[in-house]
Amino acid sequence: MQKNGLLGQLIQNLCILPSVGPKTAQRMAFYLLQRNRNGAKILAESLLNAIENIGHCQQCRTFTEHDLCEICADSTRDSSIICIVESPADSWVIDLATVFKGHYFVLHGRLSPLDGIGPDQLGLDLLEQRLASGEIKELILATNSTVEGEATAYFIGEIAKKNHVPATRIAHGVPMGGELEFIDSSTLSHAFNGRRQFT
Amino acid sequence: MQKNGLLGQLIQNLCILPSVGPKTAQRMAFYLLQRNRNGAKILAESLLNAIENIGHCQQCRTFTEHDLCEICADSTRDSSIICIVESPADSWVIDLATVFKGHYFVLHGRLSPLDGIGPDQLGLDLLEQRLASGEIKELILATNSTVEGEATAYFIGEIAKKNHVPATRIAHGVPMGGELEFIDSSTLSHAFNGRRQFT
Repeated sequence: MQKNGLLGQLIQNLCILPSVGPKTAQRMAFYLLQRNRNGAKILAESLLNAIENIGHCQQCRTFTEHDLCEICADSTRDSSIICIVESPADSWVIDLATVFKGHYFVLHGRLSPLDGIGPDQLGLDLLEQRLASGEIKELILATNSTVEGEATAYFIGEIAKKNHVPATRIAHGVPMGGELEFIDSSTLSHAFNGRRQFT
Repeated sequence: MQKNGLLGQLIQNLCILPSVGPKTAQRMAFYLLQRNRNGAKILAESLLNAIENIGHCQQCRTFTEHDLCEICADSTRDSSIICIVESPADSWVIDLATVFKGHYFVLHGRLSPLDGIGPDQLGLDLLEQRLASGEIKELILATNSTVEGEATAYFIGEIAKKNHVPATRIAHGVPMGGELEFIDSSTLSHAFNGRRQFT
């Protein structure tokens, strides 16, 4: 085994990436050294640049290298509607899939007392300040539909109620194109309870 | 979509890694920014350090930051036996699995005229110099058992013959624990043709 030296270190360091084990890291290291040294250099510089400069938007907590993110800084968007999401990726998919033109608030996680993640870690004080300002007309709760996501939505819903801001929750039910036969019972039960006037 | 800026660039740059697509790159970028900025810094520095300093061993062409790799520099190893492998990873597994204590020669590829990979790209002139020196007692051909790997082994075997160095090829046959019923016919045919005296 000659896994010492810079190559061994590189392979070990690549393993910090999520879903990259020693074999994949080895393949990545060989690929970069053999075929794409230039790309590796650009990647390394991009990494340094990103961790150096990317912080959180002062208003919505998403990642940005500026004080305000593009969405918060965009004056054409409606700042009186806030959509609460767990991660920046969630806000990206919502922006892609829907016509929503309001603001977001990114929790960077969900309430999880066992992991030491409480309201402070999610920036809920910042959110409460905004709700208390009286400028918010609606709060859309778009946390994930997991136990912790639901608990987080409930908790934030209570804050909204306290500040007299109406809070809504995105609908849970049968996904489009889904066949009832293959839907789990919890989703089906939600779909039934959430039924709406049709004609 | 707010995929511009440093974060978008980082995600795009992570995509150069083999088997990393936009979704995985996004997950990696979020993970690094959110939970492991220190690890990201170490990774970036390790990348820069590696592409800056890692070159090829002057004797066996494997990756090393020195003139000679650890194996070539190790005086306890037998320099008169050379094992030809396609990649540094192959030499690592051979060193782990076998008692081989000779030297390696790393091709960094295989003959593939359609991709423009000929004898020059594989460093075969360097290998021929070593064979011509008269100090080599055996050449072990451990290229992969693919069409190109076989062609490469044949080509190097001819060079060895010209220089009066005996060349051997690693055995192909039924893998240990393999059941004949599930072995492909090509492997089985090789195993039959390569049968050896048993008692």
